[in-house]
Amino acid sequence: VHVSRAVAGFADKGEYRHFMEKEIHEQPDAIAHTLSRYVDVDAGRFNTGDLLDWAHINRLLSTACGTAFYAGAIGKHWFEAHARLAVEIDVASEFRYRDPVIGPNDAALFISQSGETADTLAALRYCKAAGAKTLAVVNVAESSIAREADAIAQTQAGPEIGVASTKAFTAQLTALACLAIGAGRVRGVLTEADEARFVTELLEAPRLINAALASEPQIEAIAHRLTQVRDVLYLGRGVYHPLAMEGALKLKEISYIHAEGYAAGELKHGPIALIEEGTPVVVAAPYDALFEKTLSNMQEVAARGAEVILITDDKGASLAGDGAAHVVTMPDCPDLIRPIVAAAPIQLLAYHTASLKGTDVDQPRNLAKSVTVE
Amino acid sequence: VHVSRAVAGFADKGEYRHFMEKEIHEQPDAIAHTLSRYVDVDAGRFNTGDLLDWAHINRLLSTACGTAFYAGAIGKHWFEAHARLAVEIDVASEFRYRDPVIGPNDAALFISQSGETADTLAALRYCKAAGAKTLAVVNVAESSIAREADAIAQTQAGPEIGVASTKAFTAQLTALACLAIGAGRVRGVLTEADEARFVTELLEAPRLINAALASEPQIEAIAHRLTQVRDVLYLGRGVYHPLAMEGALKLKEISYIHAEGYAAGELKHGPIALIEEGTPVVVAAPYDALFEKTLSNMQEVAARGAEVILITDDKGASLAGDGAAHVVTMPDCPDLIRPIVAAAPIQLLAYHTASLKGTDVDQPRNLAKSVTVE
Repeated sequence: VHVSRAVAGFADKGEYRHFMEKEIHEQPDAIAHTLSRYVDVDAGRFNTGDLLDWAHINRLLSTACGTAFYAGAIGKHWFEAHARLAVEIDVASEFRYRDPVIGPNDAALFISQSGETADTLAALRYCKAAGAKTLAVVNVAESSIAREADAIAQTQAGPEIGVASTKAFTAQLTALACLAIGAGRVRGVLTEADEARFVTELLEAPRLINAALASEPQIEAIAHRLTQVRDVLYLGRGVYHPLAMEGALKLKEISYIHAEGYAAGELKHGPIALIEEGTPVVVAAPYDALFEKTLSNMQEVAARGAEVILITDDKGASLAGDGAAHVVTMPDCPDLIRPIVAAAPIQLLAYHTASLKGTDVDQPRNLAKSVTVE
Repeated sequence: VHVSRAVAGFADKGEYRHFMEKEIHEQPDAIAHTLSRYVDVDAGRFNTGDLLDWAHINRLLSTACGTAFYAGAIGKHWFEAHARLAVEIDVASEFRYRDPVIGPNDAALFISQSGETADTLAALRYCKAAGAKTLAVVNVAESSIAREADAIAQTQAGPEIGVASTKAFTAQLTALACLAIGAGRVRGVLTEADEARFVTELLEAPRLINAALASEPQIEAIAHRLTQVRDVLYLGRGVYHPLAMEGALKLKEISYIHAEGYAAGELKHGPIALIEEGTPVVVAAPYDALFEKTLSNMQEVAARGAEVILITDDKGASLAGDGAAHVVTMPDCPDLIRPIVAAAPIQLLAYHTASLKGTDVDQPRNLAKSVTVE
């Protein structure tokens, strides 16, 4: 009943040309609503500490498909950094068929917007049969994955109509951040003061992603350039490696431009051979501990003629030098929420490129919203 | 001294146009020499059982860059299937900077042709400092990684001159197969009879990869077609997922065509949007338990107009139906060695495409043989 009412309320595009554009702009709300479910603001606490027996888990197997897989890959960084919990990520279609080793203290995490993704559901059933406790991050509460998992962390993105996932992705990231910090507290890695600080930081995410959306006119101008190209590389390190993969996936899905994401450090092991005069390279590098390393990779491709689109923050922009042809700037953010906020310019770049090309943005060719068959 | 003499002996192209072509054809020897080091033929045993304390390892962290990373990704399947040992794979440039969680019973595996790859060496030092036992698969015995690892499994590929790795890759796979089976025996997963059977199977690899090289004239004919395209997708499942990634990397490196590898099951989660009339798609699918699934993905792209190049074996070819525009057939092989043998047609396709395009195959633009700086 809840979902049906929501669909009725949301299923018009309002002032927007496409559902995808609308959903990109709904992200401050999607994040805020998800936070409201997992954060006790007054206490400065997360209420995710009992969704799994975090203190006794040895390893977390994180499985998903497509965009949700990249959310899990960013979440892996948070679980490892803040909860010192080893996380293995895998795409569900590979995980379910390779007879993975599951130890007695391993738990399993599944991420799916629809909660009906066929391969992810099969992976969940495999893990349950192997005796692992299962936790699902889903957007649709009345779904197969939500029903069958031992515990669920529901994202509150509301119905997502555009085939290319946007607000569900940042809501997944938000839920994963809450899970990782809650786990870190239970595992004794984080203090109460740490936890309270992360609450404060996460509560800034809706405001900061809204501020990041303000770069939309500038991104639209850059998108004009991308409509003329056939290939784009996306580079990033750390949490921006999966974000680069997600950015490339978005551009592929809706603009039909062959975009590929790469770990920036892998550049010299092959993909740099593709760079020639004018090759567009999107570098996802807000300022963090790896910024200088990524900047160095950016300079390598720029020196070989690449046309660099640098997605960074104010601090990164001030340090970036002149290697980038275009610099998209988002506001400076605390570490934890920076990749969530950086999703916005990445999504807008794909959206405006596709929109300018005139593709069917909300229903791109060959794709379905939920992959409920193999 | 040994290496210097070998370089002097090998460093001419003989009857071949490029070192890369020569090195592709040296693979039967590279594999045989590597096997001779790790297999006791008379006893039907592998002598890899004491390189690590396999029985007490909880998890193996497998780290490398580029082609060596894809070898490790195939090795992961073998360690999990035959030794029931959980393996986490990561590219070294990501692993070394993300402060990975290393447990008291974790061991670490590093793979590098040169033994000097900067990021891999840094990852090795990180793991040693964290107290993990370390094992290195290297081709150059007098290298930094070989010196610093607790144990080494040296591949016997001989000097590799071409920048795009070929015989070092299949030699790495051979060593990894020996390690996985040796580990499986020590861990009690495999019986002596199992081990003896795997010895017999691996000893067939040199002959079978030699037979696979016989498809070279057919592959050269297909390569004429690829010289005209700008983008290629490579698809595979299971061990053929990393092999598809490696095939795409080879084509990128030397032909400068934007090739991208994908897990075939992820196709519907985005990349299928790229498929239009005539898009070339290489499907790596020798016959195995996942063949029917991959075939189904092949039919999906063929139905949308893709020009499919199917790399399979005799049995796969007999079952493939008519979705593929080109079928490259290698001999039927035992499970364990099938991905090693399948590397040959994948490499030949990249080689002949680049050779026909007239690129500098052995010294492709922007690339160095060993990445000894970050």
